[in-house]
Amino acid sequence: MRRVTVLCGGVGAARFLAGLVQATDPAGITAIVNVADDTELHGLMISPDLDTVTYTLAGAIDPTRGWGLVDETWQAMEQLRHYGRHHDIDPSADVGNDAAGWFALGDRDLGTHLYRTSRRLAGATLSDVTTEIAGAWAVDVRLLPVTDDPIRTMLTTVDGRRLGFQEYFVREHHDVEIAGVAIEGSESARPAPGVLESIDEADVIVIAPSNPVVSIAPVLAVPGLRETVRRARERTVAISPIVGGRALKGPADRLLRELGHESSVTGVADWYRDLASTLVIDTIDAHDVPAIEQSGLRTIVVPTVMSEPGVARALAQRCIEAAVAP
Amino acid sequence: MRRVTVLCGGVGAARFLAGLVQATDPAGITAIVNVADDTELHGLMISPDLDTVTYTLAGAIDPTRGWGLVDETWQAMEQLRHYGRHHDIDPSADVGNDAAGWFALGDRDLGTHLYRTSRRLAGATLSDVTTEIAGAWAVDVRLLPVTDDPIRTMLTTVDGRRLGFQEYFVREHHDVEIAGVAIEGSESARPAPGVLESIDEADVIVIAPSNPVVSIAPVLAVPGLRETVRRARERTVAISPIVGGRALKGPADRLLRELGHESSVTGVADWYRDLASTLVIDTIDAHDVPAIEQSGLRTIVVPTVMSEPGVARALAQRCIEAAVAP
Repeated sequence: MRRVTVLCGGVGAARFLAGLVQATDPAGITAIVNVADDTELHGLMISPDLDTVTYTLAGAIDPTRGWGLVDETWQAMEQLRHYGRHHDIDPSADVGNDAAGWFALGDRDLGTHLYRTSRRLAGATLSDVTTEIAGAWAVDVRLLPVTDDPIRTMLTTVDGRRLGFQEYFVREHHDVEIAGVAIEGSESARPAPGVLESIDEADVIVIAPSNPVVSIAPVLAVPGLRETVRRARERTVAISPIVGGRALKGPADRLLRELGHESSVTGVADWYRDLASTLVIDTIDAHDVPAIEQSGLRTIVVPTVMSEPGVARALAQRCIEAAVAP
Repeated sequence: MRRVTVLCGGVGAARFLAGLVQATDPAGITAIVNVADDTELHGLMISPDLDTVTYTLAGAIDPTRGWGLVDETWQAMEQLRHYGRHHDIDPSADVGNDAAGWFALGDRDLGTHLYRTSRRLAGATLSDVTTEIAGAWAVDVRLLPVTDDPIRTMLTTVDGRRLGFQEYFVREHHDVEIAGVAIEGSESARPAPGVLESIDEADVIVIAPSNPVVSIAPVLAVPGLRETVRRARERTVAISPIVGGRALKGPADRLLRELGHESSVTGVADWYRDLASTLVIDTIDAHDVPAIEQSGLRTIVVPTVMSEPGVARALAQRCIEAAVAP
């Protein structure tokens, strides 16, 4: 059985994984998922990337929104927002702004957060709960949070405000200029059980087309991760989340620029050069192949916009081939 | 304006209050509500008696169940229970048993708990949040939790198990024999702002037909409450929750017996004699009037089974008259 380990953020990684399970035996796949955009709202422990991956692999993701569950209802949110409006809760307040209901939690989705929070408060690790939730959805890919310790992506705006990832991404619609990103807690975090082994033992490691700055960087910030991937560089393939200079979804392009990097496949090549031996880029960026190869990365040029499952499957197939027989 | 203060538990008190607002100006009514059956489940702060009173006065209570919101949906619970079943969560486990989903939280109702928890975590007191929630439902009765400090009814079974109130009431369907009841935290609890004043200044104090052991006793256990009601004994009317020897709802009859009291209106008279000058009993118990009056309580005999709003209104009217012109 081929062993494939994927470093994952949210939506982009989830779509890739949905293709990967079509291209190779799911029992050999391990997804190492970012948890630095986890958050606590209303006392509930919320793991957006883990849930996006789980729901997508379960075939239960809402196909229009790309996050949350299909056939979702919003009764709890409507009631919460009624209270928030009635009392003019300021969503930008430093504390308790979640009472305004700016972070949408569907009713079915709330069941996941109720379960996770209960189990965590009872002493289960995030790894334990992740396995339990994935099992209940009959997901056959092994899902591992990168760490069971709390790590948090904190962004500093150019005017000095500090924002948690969800505040930046959801509340502010990533419409603020960022001066810096830090992964709080990463120095003392330990890789979750099985994480390093799954990289060491993988035939192929894929860096999913997730945001390099706020999805993949937090995964690599957990001590041991970067070194372990670097040791596996020959078996590691990165997929560019930048296509034609832009991010398909979210603020990756803007963040790269604001932090002094180039929003292009060559910029992504710079970002991942020490970790991956191969970079997968979209056909629209084929003209950049010489520059990337000159910098010491092999390239694969293939459609990467996973607007339909067939694209994701073919993309996954090419990643496997590249690492197994480069 | 007539000032009426009511000591309240959940369903029985809520139905009485719904009649009381028909009988006197709601702006003069203060409800002092039990919070010792509050609980934290899934990280959420839940105040069942406050919510039952609020929803009832808002006309939004589910008329069939008598608790929770009308037109409720249960998507979050179904999802939670799916996880709980899949992983054989033991609802009787000491910790984390809420992951089994034994405490039903409707989707709309969850909006209330999300709001309360957010506001509490942001530093608001339970009094603050109670006022905010009642305001959003346009409830014009003043609702006061008896205390903003955490107090908890703990029951000890005859075989030595310790149960929180909701574990006893909901999870075990109050189908266990109880040896003792303690109100944890009551020694150091302080009355919430306005509580003692509302008793001192009331023209009428009503002890609602709630469970004397687990609804009214915790209210009276907060330091200052019992003494203040006792001082107002001449203006205080208690309504018996026992009708024909039985509790209309819940385990009041059984609990009274298990704790060595009589499950009868004379038993209730013993329980409240030092606090109230008048006991309201149902017509079915009229034969006990001489015994009660001999023990030093005036009696009012009137239908008390509030199966329809007119009964509650007439009951409330009689309580007011009894205290204002005894």
